[in-house]
Amino acid sequence: MVIKALIFDIFGTLVDWRSTIAKEAQTTLSPLGLNTDWLQFADAWRNEYQPSMEKIRSGERPFCNLDKLHLDNLDVVLNSLGWTQVDQGSREHLNKAWHRLAAWPDVAQALKLLRSKFILAPCSNGHIALMVQLARTNDWHWDAIAGAELAGDYKPQPKVYVRSAEALGFKPHETMMVAAHSSDLEAAAKAGLKTAFIARPDEYGPGLGESVPTTRVDWVGENLLDLAQKLSREH
Amino acid sequence: MVIKALIFDIFGTLVDWRSTIAKEAQTTLSPLGLNTDWLQFADAWRNEYQPSMEKIRSGERPFCNLDKLHLDNLDVVLNSLGWTQVDQGSREHLNKAWHRLAAWPDVAQALKLLRSKFILAPCSNGHIALMVQLARTNDWHWDAIAGAELAGDYKPQPKVYVRSAEALGFKPHETMMVAAHSSDLEAAAKAGLKTAFIARPDEYGPGLGESVPTTRVDWVGENLLDLAQKLSREH
Repeated sequence: MVIKALIFDIFGTLVDWRSTIAKEAQTTLSPLGLNTDWLQFADAWRNEYQPSMEKIRSGERPFCNLDKLHLDNLDVVLNSLGWTQVDQGSREHLNKAWHRLAAWPDVAQALKLLRSKFILAPCSNGHIALMVQLARTNDWHWDAIAGAELAGDYKPQPKVYVRSAEALGFKPHETMMVAAHSSDLEAAAKAGLKTAFIARPDEYGPGLGESVPTTRVDWVGENLLDLAQKLSREH
Repeated sequence: MVIKALIFDIFGTLVDWRSTIAKEAQTTLSPLGLNTDWLQFADAWRNEYQPSMEKIRSGERPFCNLDKLHLDNLDVVLNSLGWTQVDQGSREHLNKAWHRLAAWPDVAQALKLLRSKFILAPCSNGHIALMVQLARTNDWHWDAIAGAELAGDYKPQPKVYVRSAEALGFKPHETMMVAAHSSDLEAAAKAGLKTAFIARPDEYGPGLGESVPTTRVDWVGENLLDLAQKLSREH
């Protein structure tokens, strides 16, 4: 095996966006007298994510970073609830909750173990500044920040995976994409990368994440720590 | 003061390229029966550096990374010595010495101190993979890798500084460029960044580096640790 670098999906794979967003939405909006099912609020916000990136992938809209897309999407969700009175400062504060997402509990230990064997970088649709803040929030040590901003396009466009591997100094087949989403891994494999699936069965609520991959992958972990231990035995 | 991020020149400022290159050139080439003043060899190689980047800055040559420029420049130096018998494998091994440069002795401690106060990234003409390897060689913890590859051009083009600040999530005036070279800092200041000069008086040989800045800067350190201690007292 010649894997030199691991690149990671972040939202859902390393961080539990749903719990953090629900909590921060409640903290920001309930003092304004607004109340709802905050987990559903988080889901509604996340549901706008893929359609907003699709406009960029299709060329309909020029590349912009996730802070801008997340803020536009927050406006959509607030409007759909009729919460037009939320001031711009509160919107911008809540929007930055995506910079403060908490990691799944196995991640910090797993990344430490993996960094002793491989070059590590995020390959997320989140931009560099967002990745920097998430790493600070969760005490991660990346070798570099790869991903969408570096490539100027969004996953699953193949250039995002290929450019990330190249930036780290490796061929696609020397680089492995790690994600909890089969669609991400299928695209990475088509781009020539090795792939590892890890289960995050509760990403969208209990039992509503992916537990097993629906595409062929090179490695499977019950979580990131399980994958790290399996890879360590081979390297 | 509103400085949020520090970005760093690397060659000469954080690493002693001259000693490492001289040593690695000797180690690689003397077994082939080749001998010269190895420090002069390092200087000759480095002397090709600015002219090779100028072709890219001027638009005469498309952007390519430093591994390519360094290898072209090594060919020039070997040809000028008549050492045409050096095989391609030895050339490529020696070329990667730029990935293994040793830091000046104050750097590791200084970066640890600075990272407790600021977001940190290299802003070098070296590419991302080279910066990743230098960080591994010297046990540095960057928040991200900024610089030439991200901007698609070489310093002192203003976009390299501005794009680096933006990638970290900050305005130019919230970002400070740290370098041992007045020309680098003058360009960063023109691009709107704060600037800090640190002395590396022996960069090109004893007493042949810059000891004092020849342009107006915001901060001056006798070395990086001195600068880190001064900044820590204000933050």
